[in-house]
Amino acid sequence: LGTGSVGQTIATALIKNGHEVMMGSRSARNEKALAWTGKNGNKASEGSFDDAAAFGEILFLCLNGSGALDAVRSINKKNVNGKTVLDLTNPLDFSKGMPPGILEGLGNTTSLGEEIQKVLSSAHVVKALNTLTAQLMVAPKLVNGGDHNLFICGNDADAKKQVKELLAREFGWMPENLIDLGGIQNARGTEAYVPFWVSIMQARGNPLFNVKIVQ
Amino acid sequence: LGTGSVGQTIATALIKNGHEVMMGSRSARNEKALAWTGKNGNKASEGSFDDAAAFGEILFLCLNGSGALDAVRSINKKNVNGKTVLDLTNPLDFSKGMPPGILEGLGNTTSLGEEIQKVLSSAHVVKALNTLTAQLMVAPKLVNGGDHNLFICGNDADAKKQVKELLAREFGWMPENLIDLGGIQNARGTEAYVPFWVSIMQARGNPLFNVKIVQ
Repeated sequence: LGTGSVGQTIATALIKNGHEVMMGSRSARNEKALAWTGKNGNKASEGSFDDAAAFGEILFLCLNGSGALDAVRSINKKNVNGKTVLDLTNPLDFSKGMPPGILEGLGNTTSLGEEIQKVLSSAHVVKALNTLTAQLMVAPKLVNGGDHNLFICGNDADAKKQVKELLAREFGWMPENLIDLGGIQNARGTEAYVPFWVSIMQARGNPLFNVKIVQ
Repeated sequence: LGTGSVGQTIATALIKNGHEVMMGSRSARNEKALAWTGKNGNKASEGSFDDAAAFGEILFLCLNGSGALDAVRSINKKNVNGKTVLDLTNPLDFSKGMPPGILEGLGNTTSLGEEIQKVLSSAHVVKALNTLTAQLMVAPKLVNGGDHNLFICGNDADAKKQVKELLAREFGWMPENLIDLGGIQNARGTEAYVPFWVSIMQARGNPLFNVKIVQ
């Protein structure tokens, strides 16, 4: 779900790995989604958010923070029943200049991850991959030989296990570098980190970095 | 300023390095400050926040987030005129359980660092050292041979230079690991990171870690 650079990067990487991917957007026949399917062969398709939710075994939420809740509200809950939903969204507010803030009502005492879990109550939301630039999500070896950390949280242990296995198998993340923070309320932390990530990115002038926890 | 574990750790390290340190608290003759001076020889003294502000060449704000603004408001501005104020505070709210939140009105569109700079308008506030456990602040070599990052921000370039030199000389931070994020508004990021730090700390069960930016 989502046709931006994160959605395109994830979708293209999964196609290259041999998977069938449907790119979902607000309405089917979205221009960016059609352009993407045109370049990615017969395993690539497109449809509405709900079409993609029904199609996918696993859903990747690659949505703009400000539109994410409306997007998931447009999904028929029956289409995500028991499914794992990998939530990459960030509730960033760039309207007041840099560094960005967190969208009103989506920070501090809640998070986009938690609110998405409330809307998709029959699914298992796992927050992950929201703390780094798109290019690195699918190619962690681009920095420090792949030795750096991802932070994962969610309420369902099996869904988190499935996401960890997927990240290792599809994108090459080292299993020991996937830090499980606990329940979905810990999305508050990983989302709140992102404006800080933007500050670091600006200071460096380059988004190709990540954090490694050292001890 | 401050008598808790951060204040005691910083003050003791500076005494060990041969400096004179006055520990400031809400009122002079604070029990914890007196106990600290009793153990730290004749270069250690104590007084009110304002006494310490008048005494110090550099001020270290090691205050509880919820009391920090009241503490700095009790300082006579003439006593900090042109001085560097190293702000280690975090506006954490533990009242609603874990992970902690950010205190009402002190996050997202402002930060404790910015509000302290507004109160101490004649001083140069530099936010630093607020992103790791006290023990590591003064002994970075305890993890990864000292190779990990600190984030610094503030509006005055000379004050930031002074803080960077102090961190290297007094505590052994590697100059290349001190990341200058820009103006004091970037304290929003380093403060917002701290509830995330708490989540990571809980997942690890140990506060002796830090982040290293890898590229």
